[in-house]
Amino acid sequence: MKKELLLGAAYYLEYMPYDRLEEDLKLMKAAGFNVIRIAESTWSTWEPEDNVFDFTLLDRMLDGAKKYDLQVIIGTPTYAVPAWLVKKHPQVLAETRNGRGLYGPRQIMDITDPMFRFYGERIIRKVIEHTADRPCVIGFQIDNETKHYGTASPEVQKAFVEYLKEKFRTTDNLNKAFNLAYWSNSVHRWEDFPDVRGTINGGLAGEFEKFQRKLAADYLHWQSDIVKEYKREDQFIVHNMDFEWVPFDPRDPFSGYSYGVQPDINHYEVSKCLTLAGTDIYHPTQDQLTGAEIAFGGDSIRSLKQDNYLVSECQAQGFKQWTPYPGQLKLHAYSHLASGALGIMYWNWHSVHNGFEVYWKGVLSHDLKPAAVYHEISSFGNEWKAVGSRLLGMKKTNKVALVTDNVSLTGLKKFPMDWSLTYNNVVRWMYDALYEMNIECDVVDVNALETDRYKMIITPAMYSATEETIARLDQFVKDGGVLVSSFKSFMCNEYLSVYPDSLPHNMTQCFGMSYDQFTAPGTAAVKGHPVTGFAELLKVDEGTSLASYEHKYWGRYGAMTKNDYGKGKAYYMGCYTSKDVLKELYRQAAADAGIEIPDLSWPLIMRSGSFDDGRQVHFLLNYSQTEQTVTCPFERAVNILDNKEYKKGDTIALKDWDVVILER
Amino acid sequence: MKKELLLGAAYYLEYMPYDRLEEDLKLMKAAGFNVIRIAESTWSTWEPEDNVFDFTLLDRMLDGAKKYDLQVIIGTPTYAVPAWLVKKHPQVLAETRNGRGLYGPRQIMDITDPMFRFYGERIIRKVIEHTADRPCVIGFQIDNETKHYGTASPEVQKAFVEYLKEKFRTTDNLNKAFNLAYWSNSVHRWEDFPDVRGTINGGLAGEFEKFQRKLAADYLHWQSDIVKEYKREDQFIVHNMDFEWVPFDPRDPFSGYSYGVQPDINHYEVSKCLTLAGTDIYHPTQDQLTGAEIAFGGDSIRSLKQDNYLVSECQAQGFKQWTPYPGQLKLHAYSHLASGALGIMYWNWHSVHNGFEVYWKGVLSHDLKPAAVYHEISSFGNEWKAVGSRLLGMKKTNKVALVTDNVSLTGLKKFPMDWSLTYNNVVRWMYDALYEMNIECDVVDVNALETDRYKMIITPAMYSATEETIARLDQFVKDGGVLVSSFKSFMCNEYLSVYPDSLPHNMTQCFGMSYDQFTAPGTAAVKGHPVTGFAELLKVDEGTSLASYEHKYWGRYGAMTKNDYGKGKAYYMGCYTSKDVLKELYRQAAADAGIEIPDLSWPLIMRSGSFDDGRQVHFLLNYSQTEQTVTCPFERAVNILDNKEYKKGDTIALKDWDVVILER
Amino acid sequence: MKKELLLGAAYYLEYMPYDRLEEDLKLMKAAGFNVIRIAESTWSTWEPEDNVFDFTLLDRMLDGAKKYDLQVIIGTPTYAVPAWLVKKHPQVLAETRNGRGLYGPRQIMDITDPMFRFYGERIIRKVIEHTADRPCVIGFQIDNETKHYGTASPEVQKAFVEYLKEKFRTTDNLNKAFNLAYWSNSVHRWEDFPDVRGTINGGLAGEFEKFQRKLAADYLHWQSDIVKEYKREDQFIVHNMDFEWVPFDPRDPFSGYSYGVQPDINHYEVSKCLTLAGTDIYHPTQDQLTGAEIAFGGDSIRSLKQDNYLVSECQAQGFKQWTPYPGQLKLHAYSHLASGALGIMYWNWHSVHNGFEVYWKGVLSHDLKPAAVYHEISSFGNEWKAVGSRLLGMKKTNKVALVTDNVSLTGLKKFPMDWSLTYNNVVRWMYDALYEMNIECDVVDVNALETDRYKMIITPAMYSATEETIARLDQFVKDGGVLVSSFKSFMCNEYLSVYPDSLPHNMTQCFGMSYDQFTAPGTAAVKGHPVTGFAELLKVDEGTSLASYEHKYWGRYGAMTKNDYGKGKAYYMGCYTSKDVLKELYRQAAADAGIEIPDLSWPLIMRSGSFDDGRQVHFLLNYSQTEQTVTCPFERAVNILDNKEYKKGDTIALKDWDVVILER
Repeated sequence: MKKELLLGAAYYLEYMPYDRLEEDLKLMKAAGFNVIRIAESTWSTWEPEDNVFDFTLLDRMLDGAKKYDLQVIIGTPTYAVPAWLVKKHPQVLAETRNGRGLYGPRQIMDITDPMFRFYGERIIRKVIEHTADRPCVIGFQIDNETKHYGTASPEVQKAFVEYLKEKFRTTDNLNKAFNLAYWSNSVHRWEDFPDVRGTINGGLAGEFEKFQRKLAADYLHWQSDIVKEYKREDQFIVHNMDFEWVPFDPRDPFSGYSYGVQPDINHYEVSKCLTLAGTDIYHPTQDQLTGAEIAFGGDSIRSLKQDNYLVSECQAQGFKQWTPYPGQLKLHAYSHLASGALGIMYWNWHSVHNGFEVYWKGVLSHDLKPAAVYHEISSFGNEWKAVGSRLLGMKKTNKVALVTDNVSLTGLKKFPMDWSLTYNNVVRWMYDALYEMNIECDVVDVNALETDRYKMIITPAMYSATEETIARLDQFVKDGGVLVSSFKSFMCNEYLSVYPDSLPHNMTQCFGMSYDQFTAPGTAAVKGHPVTGFAELLKVDEGTSLASYEHKYWGRYGAMTKNDYGKGKAYYMGCYTSKDVLKELYRQAAADAGIEIPDLSWPLIMRSGSFDDGRQVHFLLNYSQTEQTVTCPFERAVNILDNKEYKKGDTIALKDWDVVILER
Repeated sequence: MKKELLLGAAYYLEYMPYDRLEEDLKLMKAAGFNVIRIAESTWSTWEPEDNVFDFTLLDRMLDGAKKYDLQVIIGTPTYAVPAWLVKKHPQVLAETRNGRGLYGPRQIMDITDPMFRFYGERIIRKVIEHTADRPCVIGFQIDNETKHYGTASPEVQKAFVEYLKEKFRTTDNLNKAFNLAYWSNSVHRWEDFPDVRGTINGGLAGEFEKFQRKLAADYLHWQSDIVKEYKREDQFIVHNMDFEWVPFDPRDPFSGYSYGVQPDINHYEVSKCLTLAGTDIYHPTQDQLTGAEIAFGGDSIRSLKQDNYLVSECQAQGFKQWTPYPGQLKLHAYSHLASGALGIMYWNWHSVHNGFEVYWKGVLSHDLKPAAVYHEISSFGNEWKAVGSRLLGMKKTNKVALVTDNVSLTGLKKFPMDWSLTYNNVVRWMYDALYEMNIECDVVDVNALETDRYKMIITPAMYSATEETIARLDQFVKDGGVLVSSFKSFMCNEYLSVYPDSLPHNMTQCFGMSYDQFTAPGTAAVKGHPVTGFAELLKVDEGTSLASYEHKYWGRYGAMTKNDYGKGKAYYMGCYTSKDVLKELYRQAAADAGIEIPDLSWPLIMRSGSFDDGRQVHFLLNYSQTEQTVTCPFERAVNILDNKEYKKGDTIALKDWDVVILER
Repeated sequence: MKKELLLGAAYYLEYMPYDRLEEDLKLMKAAGFNVIRIAESTWSTWEPEDNVFDFTLLDRMLDGAKKYDLQVIIGTPTYAVPAWLVKKHPQVLAETRNGRGLYGPRQIMDITDPMFRFYGERIIRKVIEHTADRPCVIGFQIDNETKHYGTASPEVQKAFVEYLKEKFRTTDNLNKAFNLAYWSNSVHRWEDFPDVRGTINGGLAGEFEKFQRKLAADYLHWQSDIVKEYKREDQFIVHNMDFEWVPFDPRDPFSGYSYGVQPDINHYEVSKCLTLAGTDIYHPTQDQLTGAEIAFGGDSIRSLKQDNYLVSECQAQGFKQWTPYPGQLKLHAYSHLASGALGIMYWNWHSVHNGFEVYWKGVLSHDLKPAAVYHEISSFGNEWKAVGSRLLGMKKTNKVALVTDNVSLTGLKKFPMDWSLTYNNVVRWMYDALYEMNIECDVVDVNALETDRYKMIITPAMYSATEETIARLDQFVKDGGVLVSSFKSFMCNEYLSVYPDSLPHNMTQCFGMSYDQFTAPGTAAVKGHPVTGFAELLKVDEGTSLASYEHKYWGRYGAMTKNDYGKGKAYYMGCYTSKDVLKELYRQAAADAGIEIPDLSWPLIMRSGSFDDGRQVHFLLNYSQTEQTVTCPFERAVNILDNKEYKKGDTIALKDWDVVILER
């Protein structure tokens, strides 16, 4: 792998309406591209019939890449199965809550099915074997945006019962753990265990989803092990992890963007089988471009291995909602770098002319001619040749961790706070408030959390928390840490059973308060801001109320609290309200944690990092369509992009959607 | 049964996360509770495997009840089937319009299935046999909120065809009754009768729903007959009838409240197999507490047997939307008594920690500690020890009947007036206007109507009415009664076939008007109030128009009419509009009927009753968060709750959500 | 067939609650009716059991028609199958994307199923044979509002593969045509072709819908061929073609109206097997009556054969939303004539008392008595006896064609512009703007387009266009025509594959512009009007920008353009915005085309035609509830309806919803 920032695109010679490989590679090269990702979508092209293989197009792409000095990432093509396989073995299609689907979409197979595994393994071996020796191949992507696809076949369910047996040993323990006595759901012989797809038991349903996420991670580990048999030392294994997808408008379920924690696979489990973390990040743009999704996604993926990561996919034009304003593509690109990305790859090189994602446009529009989008990418692509080496391998060491958890996500899906308030809404509310204040953080899966790395830990709606996690966080505060928790934290154990004592469970001393009532907020407000979705009525004990509810009856209860506990501080936000209120709390908490908050805030974003050689860089990003100025806060700094020098107090001007990178 | 108001809760030792039976019973006793309902949810606990029975927990609850002098209602546990039964006999799951479901939820079985009946009968006999001799057991609840659950298996359909044969004898009669010739649906041999689930014929579909309601009632009669074999003379048989459930927000289908007439079973049919009518009433609270649902539900259930009834379930905290303001729980409780309840039972004692209804909270929150809700209940619970005997067995004799009908409900579901205007909307509109004016009424199933009990009869949207019913109402007016009917009354026969002559059928003389056109209201108004949803264009004949439409083209038609007919009066409300307009009509009608309307109105509610010893009581209920005063309308009265005496003209002060009970 | 305007209704003796045939026919006759349509709905009446036929009621209707001198149209009763047929041969029910349905609704059969065809042919032959000799029978309607009903059985799919084989010969060609390589969907042996119901490939899905439309048309051709074996020379074959149906409110899917191009059958293909085009047109009325649907439907159906057509069904009262204001029924009727209808027939004579369409009311309300609706129809019905001969056989020769295309409709369903912007929205936007300006046009299926008939051609969102169509339109402009195209025209080939070169494909010279970007409009405006749904960013080359976007970043792009090309002009509207902006463009385009625009506009509509004898007539229609005046634009004209004479400059007064027919 070259010592350069990666810039490239997914490329599909298979989809081209006419032969233009040379022209495409020439255009890429001219734009400063140095990498393409190929092969990951088109199993039916590589294996047109059972056991008949045809790598003609693959070889042509590899030959071309060599000729134009482009690096290549090879994807295993397993996420979309060929028609002949389904014709031959219909059971490879996953059986879900909705029964067995029809062939057509991608990601519809049962990833556990032995027949799928047999054919999958064969094509993986063939593709990797065929390409691993090529010098231009720098790494492999296993599968694509893998999830469990709701797999719930009889075999999967049998495996689930085995998993439960191993975990609980007796049906009595099982019944107790999930309160299966409720509505007569208890089982007293393992063979009576019913089809879990019908269960109304939130805990059991949550456990099954946990099991399904494990199946998905196991599947990627299996792929990784196969690839390892072939790959060279210098080749990486990557996977493009994605996020919960939310539509712009519920009436158009296709167009949307990366929003929050992925419900259907656990990134941390996956990351263990990768040598490089990768991610697909898509985000609103035009007037809706805030940079928050780029930062959230990057902070999440970087924290998996506490290392740089690859943006495997990001948007060139994408949907009509994403047609970029001048300057925005450049801002996107530098924003990814500002989070610690090794580089970015567009999905995809050329807009597709038929199929499904015809209006998920690539670097080239349907006319396949270089135009505005190509030219803007080309402009910073060539800039990277000059400045890339000064940005490669930037490290970040954040003192703040925001902790996420798929189990809590599932829990609050089964037991919603409000139709308008999901787990990820709370995660993004707490993340975005930090982001807008320019408090940088890691976004850490609860299973990966090392509390001693951080001075301040934030738990958004950590509905499910084991006794062990609770004890660690309690100790973190005792030892001098600052904890900021939201409502619905520390309520249930890992089986989504509400702890049957004072809430937040085992944290009432830490927070100096407890509650036994919560309510729809009605007209309640806090600090003048309306409360929406959910409110806990906090009974403040040792702690201090930072604000009570403004409400005739709930005025006697706290809405947000603070407590001195051991050597640390514990903050609790009891309700969902304006980010402004949360920011006020953060300001106090950050001060307690000794974290300095920059004197600028969104739409002006500053993100920083450092290099092994001691250099520090600060990305200044203007997320607005108006010009902005910043007063240089550093003694002396140079803008990497134009080598202009600034001294403390100098005015730094940023045009609309502009970037300045100060190096110290 | 003790001569006390009943106060209690559903109790589930089976659901407890740890053993605390003694503590729970002690807390109940201290709060003034005197009854618990047990056993009705957990068949799989009592019969963990086929023909293996385990009543350990049941016995412990009964022993505890005895020790703490609590009375017990035993429920038959049939509404939630165990997993082993479904595993063994999958056909016990109902086959509905959507096919056969998966195991998990309650109330998913085919209540007619012989296999279900076999196992159901066995567990009923075992449970009743095991408990009937216990002196603390005062009665039995058969099943729980029973409905037909859409059962439409081939066997059910065969029975339906038999039912049709018996009713119509020939296919010609059948075709004629439902106009099956329409769209080629006629059958000319019984064996050609198709799967009724697909029918588009509104009449036939309605007839099938009528048949399904009958199956549900038959099922409860069957359970009652079994229980009668075991029960003592002094033990009652109750069933907890519920109402149409509407969600607070369609985006959250679970949280909602008791709204109107139950579509899926006929309460009157059910009541014949009960010795005590019971009901589950849930209602909006906090700022939305009006008392209307408590009154509507009570007036409906009381009228089934013209006797006192039991509130088998009502809300302690329930959903987050129901977290009560201080004073509201007391107001709820006295409001139930004001409608003639024998007492109330909360669902449930303790909040459940896992399962499905985790956030349908009970008297105790998840921490299982006495707190605000417990303390408020405890306060009036202990008050009842002092004053309960003065309130027990209150009788009501109302002069007004509001007549309801499931067939009309079904009819207006098949043939909607408007997506925004259901049968129950009209029922509640006409009921709530009475309620707000403090005109008390019975809510009477059309099959139970005895016209000579009443001076004024109200028919909301009685879309389906037999010739016999129509003749009786006509006679009622002729004999001096006052009839108030809304639009869409007297339009169809019992098969939902529109009567093919002047509408309202056979009532055009009675009302002195007819109509042949109706319309979407557009911009039409009546007395300045906009008309919404539906409007009939009344051609006034002998009658008097009380108001014409305010509209360029419909102005020539009446919107509401009055007619002198025989010795009585007949009012007709031709459109849906503001309750204010309806109240104006009611004021005239009540005057005609010689019914006095109190000089106070919602949020001040007065509900009255009398006792065998000649005492009269008047509940004054303040449904608002502001203090209110009432001028005592009685010569001399004593507030039962504080023994304060008032004379005519005295000012009676009520705090927010307060209750005063005047005894004369 | 008499030389009279047709006036009549669908009549169903089969649905009558009691015998009143004589009375009905007498009432019809008195109202000026001269035709009824019978028999088309009630197969189960004519064939109560397999191979048992009973035409008693049919004969009675025919005898009655003879007696009362009414003409009769006989419908084949095939669109609603009898229960016995489904019982005997369940496979006659169509298997669709949702599996096989249940018996009950109409139009649920597999129109290709050999068993259905066997029984269908038998009943058609029986009915036609039985009636063709009757002198009163003037024609036959084959089936009813036929569509493909989603038929996708294994047999249909086999036929589809044969169709593909014939079209593409090799799987390679197939894969290429639809880019099946995308997501591994390519097939390399025909036997691997998967169940097409699951495909995500928009092109392939579109091709299957095209094939399904062909099946539907083939089915009608088959019926027509059977009827031809029996019918007399003087008897016509008609079919009642309908339009895309949109609901008034999505919460009430039943009530709606005829909106735009029919997606599920191609009218032009159908029309070839008819001797008379027929149509069912339903439209908003009351305050929403604009006349646009009557005009759009009429212009579409008239253009199929460039001849007069029959309104087979239109509304008397219909839904509650359609209860007509006084004068509106007359306005409806004359509006149909103004588009070239031979006459109109109401659906239906009498309101049905049970079934499904109980509230799709007929000429008589449920009371079956003549009332307001009957009397208004009767009034102009009798007028027609006097003036009908002066209106019969009016011809229209329009110089403007608006071109429609089901393939583009399907394409924009698979690849939507926006959830709020369908193909038919664009069609109606472009049609309605013409209509409101009183520019009359033909609405022409692209397959029927003869460019040399027209001076101006309009293509709304012609997403799919063959090379041949594009070449013809290019030539049309070169030769002096005026072309007006909207965004999304000329984007894809007939397989919905986007053309991989500059867009609009092969029309960039013609329009003098191209584009490679499009966008969600955000805050963009054009000429002060907000743009919604979709906007193309036009790069103006040889052409002239008529307006640029009002937007910080898109201001550099054209929003609407004009170009001189050859001897003609080409206009392009690049975005969806107010009709006012479009009208401004039309004004210029019409001037270029030498088309005179009348000096009046909606709510005053003028529609014109001419007769073989040289007379010209101009219908003046007042679509408003206020009186209007028009200054007579003709030297001398006589109002056919009252024989009043007007000279140029005279004031012609129209009452609310009034009609004047000027004859020159």
